[in-house]
Amino acid sequence: MRRALFIGRFQPFHNGHLHALRYILERFDEAVIAVAAAQYNYTADNPFTAGERVEMIKLGLGDLYSRCYVIPVDNISNNYLWPLHLLSYVPRVDTVFSNNRFVQELFKILGLETVETPVLPGVSDTMVRRLMAEDGDWESLVPSSVAEFIKRINGVERVGGLLKLSVRVQGERF
Amino acid sequence: MRRALFIGRFQPFHNGHLHALRYILERFDEAVIAVAAAQYNYTADNPFTAGERVEMIKLGLGDLYSRCYVIPVDNISNNYLWPLHLLSYVPRVDTVFSNNRFVQELFKILGLETVETPVLPGVSDTMVRRLMAEDGDWESLVPSSVAEFIKRINGVERVGGLLKLSVRVQGERF
Amino acid sequence: MRRALFIGRFQPFHNGHLHALRYILERFDEAVIAVAAAQYNYTADNPFTAGERVEMIKLGLGDLYSRCYVIPVDNISNNYLWPLHLLSYVPRVDTVFSNNRFVQELFKILGLETVETPVLPGVSDTMVRRLMAEDGDWESLVPSSVAEFIKRINGVERVGGLLKLSVRVQGERF
Amino acid sequence: MRRALFIGRFQPFHNGHLHALRYILERFDEAVIAVAAAQYNYTADNPFTAGERVEMIKLGLGDLYSRCYVIPVDNISNNYLWPLHLLSYVPRVDTVFSNNRFVQELFKILGLETVETPVLPGVSDTMVRRLMAEDGDWESLVPSSVAEFIKRINGVERVGGLLKLSVRVQGERF
Amino acid sequence: MRRALFIGRFQPFHNGHLHALRYILERFDEAVIAVAAAQYNYTADNPFTAGERVEMIKLGLGDLYSRCYVIPVDNISNNYLWPLHLLSYVPRVDTVFSNNRFVQELFKILGLETVETPVLPGVSDTMVRRLMAEDGDWESLVPSSVAEFIKRINGVERVGGLLKLSVRVQGERF
Amino acid sequence: MRRALFIGRFQPFHNGHLHALRYILERFDEAVIAVAAAQYNYTADNPFTAGERVEMIKLGLGDLYSRCYVIPVDNISNNYLWPLHLLSYVPRVDTVFSNNRFVQELFKILGLETVETPVLPGVSDTMVRRLMAEDGDWESLVPSSVAEFIKRINGVERVGGLLKLSVRVQGERF
Repeated sequence: MRRALFIGRFQPFHNGHLHALRYILERFDEAVIAVAAAQYNYTADNPFTAGERVEMIKLGLGDLYSRCYVIPVDNISNNYLWPLHLLSYVPRVDTVFSNNRFVQELFKILGLETVETPVLPGVSDTMVRRLMAEDGDWESLVPSSVAEFIKRINGVERVGGLLKLSVRVQGERF
Repeated sequence: MRRALFIGRFQPFHNGHLHALRYILERFDEAVIAVAAAQYNYTADNPFTAGERVEMIKLGLGDLYSRCYVIPVDNISNNYLWPLHLLSYVPRVDTVFSNNRFVQELFKILGLETVETPVLPGVSDTMVRRLMAEDGDWESLVPSSVAEFIKRINGVERVGGLLKLSVRVQGERF
Repeated sequence: MRRALFIGRFQPFHNGHLHALRYILERFDEAVIAVAAAQYNYTADNPFTAGERVEMIKLGLGDLYSRCYVIPVDNISNNYLWPLHLLSYVPRVDTVFSNNRFVQELFKILGLETVETPVLPGVSDTMVRRLMAEDGDWESLVPSSVAEFIKRINGVERVGGLLKLSVRVQGERF
Repeated sequence: MRRALFIGRFQPFHNGHLHALRYILERFDEAVIAVAAAQYNYTADNPFTAGERVEMIKLGLGDLYSRCYVIPVDNISNNYLWPLHLLSYVPRVDTVFSNNRFVQELFKILGLETVETPVLPGVSDTMVRRLMAEDGDWESLVPSSVAEFIKRINGVERVGGLLKLSVRVQGERF
Repeated sequence: MRRALFIGRFQPFHNGHLHALRYILERFDEAVIAVAAAQYNYTADNPFTAGERVEMIKLGLGDLYSRCYVIPVDNISNNYLWPLHLLSYVPRVDTVFSNNRFVQELFKILGLETVETPVLPGVSDTMVRRLMAEDGDWESLVPSSVAEFIKRINGVERVGGLLKLSVRVQGERF
Repeated sequence: MRRALFIGRFQPFHNGHLHALRYILERFDEAVIAVAAAQYNYTADNPFTAGERVEMIKLGLGDLYSRCYVIPVDNISNNYLWPLHLLSYVPRVDTVFSNNRFVQELFKILGLETVETPVLPGVSDTMVRRLMAEDGDWESLVPSSVAEFIKRINGVERVGGLLKLSVRVQGERF
């Protein structure tokens, strides 16, 4: 049994994430999906709660879900400590996948090399949120089950509103 | 007995706040004044401590105080959770007053509709602090008892100094 | 204007607290009532939320309230730091009243001498909660407005249930 | 799509948990399994990390897993706030299952009624840990896949050692 | 340059600690002394502040100090994470010394074997504090410079008072 | 015995710090060096861990170390409380040295006047980090033992990489 870790904020879960997870699940028995920055929500960069993100990931994965764990993990202020903090909340993994340079750097502290996943060009969390705010075609960038979920919880209005207010962290607003 | 909640940072308490509270107290038996971001102080946006803000609010309210609660509440990083966190520190309320779009959005999560208060044009926390820093006429924007209090604790110098240093949060400065 | 600080957990507010506050308000212009351990609730020792405690204190004080502040303050793990932490949430005070030896010791660190209040024999938070759990005459130990409030929120059942479950802190239960 | 919430510490996951989850999954489309007290580990009451608990739950569920979420949630000190804190980390649920009186009480604060699950007599987290420490037959109380997992990570020795040291929380030991 | 880590709470620093450190400094170039549970003070088990403990350690070490680091480290609630948390606050070390079975167990998680130090029979933090409270001969168990320091800050009275009040953590007292 | 406090983040320790400490140690018996913002690391402004900073300070001090304490102190969000928080982690001091206007302001809250140290023109933490990132001559601005240490831990690459990623706090990155 070989298991891979895949880390993201999934704000929201999109086709690029699905593409990377398919790639991982062709090479590993199971994937652990860590939902980072779990304590943040209702901000411009983190509009969805951890629970909403977990729900959309299971929806987007479909049948692949039975080979995946989806686990929210809070951020902490000590970056050096963050990889082990994350690992204490997830099952043991053999390999860490990430295209994020900073994540790669931090895992090296523990002596763990990270591996990159193939990228779907033009799809990113930021891009999807911007298209939502600008009334653009965000739906084609996410699995249709995820698009339906987001519309059902009025997620498009939420993302647009938070971007307009530029709410970043609560302490700045009131 | 009907009770209303009024939320602000009160940095400092000014005539706009007093105006809103008079409006509320004409319609409700009691007002709960939540002093948000209570743990922050000595920053450009939050120059006064929670205790100083509580003291100036009671001064500014005068006789109205006997129908009010003034309660400091710390901010937390989970925005979704913030309204209930706040409610656990204050007496039960029937209505929530706020003109802040973000506060309105967050209270909707709990199924609570917020109501707007009339606004006194040209008066805001930010405006009062800017006038303090620029040696402008800030005193006419706050109750005279509050102005006296701020001068007694050398608040004008503090606000000016913090704005000049652009101290936002401590971690950024040293 | 001379102001005194009075510290307690007020689980619940009882005649002994009222007796001490009357004593203080004969000697000072204003009293600051700090509601300690504010973040704790629904435990055997801390059954009521900070908000409920604030509400019962205002009810119990009656007309005296207009000369009082009622302010919840969270506990922190650094005892040495606790008195100044508390002072940052309350208006400036001239004297600190407490019969608690530990509170007295901690305020000495700041060079602040505490003063004792007269005691009403046989009345304490613990005693009131025990009488509630044993179906005893707790009502005669608290102001009648407070008794009514506690009954309205089903506080007697809550206190009895929590004592039976011996819920102390959440981490111990599940 | 109807979804149920099931809350526990799963120290470790045993046949009683599996029994309850089978009952729930006969009545609901999906079950959300919240792993409470997630930040605690290597104590007498909480020997396993959140990640280890998640791993044993998926193992124990077998094919049922595809209809379940398994989500670690940290405890917080404000009990009143805990149910909504938990709900912010999990997908939306229709019903909350719990036989724990305290959990039932806390969810009532949010207006949510909890439902009880059938119980497997003589099986509990405490019982399994005690049998581990006393070299008793703990294996028959947990799914065989979970027993294998626990032996592979030397969990029996860990539980016995922590019980002998009576390590409860770290602050008490050194 | 070879460096060893030595962990304790040092409540207070006594001859047993000095004995162990002499043993370590005969075998290593430098010793890193981690003052654990740094955030706790003014409790029965942790009467002295981190700063006071650091001061008494330097006093007790005398000339050995120039080859030592003395570093306070807060406890955290995630035991699994604690060793790396501690290591992020201290210089890189080659070996970890500890006679505490729990500390040994936790460092094994990181793959780090701990080594035991020789013990001075009949000397422990608990014993010294008990002798202080019972007016016994605690002074012969600590370096004379440490005894003087403790008397200068009225430490004996503090330890006795806290043991009598059985103040363990602040949340339990008020 | 007279003791002075010197506060900094030491990202990294440079000749300006050494210059100030020599000045202080000519006037005081001992210096307490508080390493502020201790919990932050692997960010653009705080690239080095507390432990690495402590190690480089001892290296840079050479023989002066035997008269110094080097103590990491976490930042907290309540600025008013920060000076006493810091003081609870360090030995008692007679004088506080700082050229930082904000630090001076905060210590005044406790009634403590701070004293300025002479400055070495053109040397600052920011300048050293910028030269590292731009392949400039940073080595001449720090003690040679510190330069060697930084190169041995690949510190130059780390600082450059973090500046390029503009990693400020973790929550912003993923």
